Amino acid sequence: MHITSLDQIEKTVPEMPGAKAVCKQVPLSREHGAPTFSFRVFTIEPGGHTPLHRHPYEHMNYVITGQGILVSEDGELSVREGDFALVLPGENHQYRNSSSGRDLVMICAVPIEHE
Amino acid sequence: MHITSLDQIEKTVPEMPGAKAVCKQVPLSREHGAPTFSFRVFTIEPGGHTPLHRHPYEHMNYVITGQGILVSEDGELSVREGDFALVLPGENHQYRNSSSGRDLVMICAVPIEHE
Repeated sequence: MHITSLDQIEKTVPEMPGAKAVCKQVPLSREHGAPTFSFRVFTIEPGGHTPLHRHPYEHMNYVITGQGILVSEDGELSVREGDFALVLPGENHQYRNSSSGRDLVMICAVPIEHE
Repeated sequence: MHITSLDQIEKTVPEMPGAKAVCKQVPLSREHGAPTFSFRVFTIEPGGHTPLHRHPYEHMNYVITGQGILVSEDGELSVREGDFALVLPGENHQYRNSSSGRDLVMICAVPIEHE
């Protein structure tokens, strides 16, 4: 059993070529004994974005606060607080913070080997 | 790629002996092609609770709104909006809504075979 919140978790700047103004936290991880999945949280500042990329595993996202654009093979899709998104293995994708003044904060859960 | 929000998802009353005033939604599921994990959401009304039980797979929780008690082998732990919780395989656990007037709404992610 492990309970935590974002104000207790270290923020790091992930090494992701193509990312801008993004930081990462890992509230539920292999460090806590998670056997299958990790819950990471990305904070994207206004004007920032994750890389436009693809990989052989899925993302499961939940937008905690803010709003943005999910660039996908289906075009640019809007996402906002309260939205859930599933990016399937192999799909090209990028999150952009489209707001002028508010961070986009989202859970990005992945299989634990890609924590 | 699949984007959704709770207002688009059917609410069902899960068949869980020992549950009271709980409903379930599954925003990201095997139905959408999720390969590893499912994101379910439980809404527990004031005075309601999930079963006190254990099972051989983990829960990964995020509290979207409200507050409550996570009954655990370590005692009764408080959880509230913004908290993350990891319940490991085999751990006895129960969520209770301890508030007088607000639903406890939380993501409860599990390996997909236990959706």
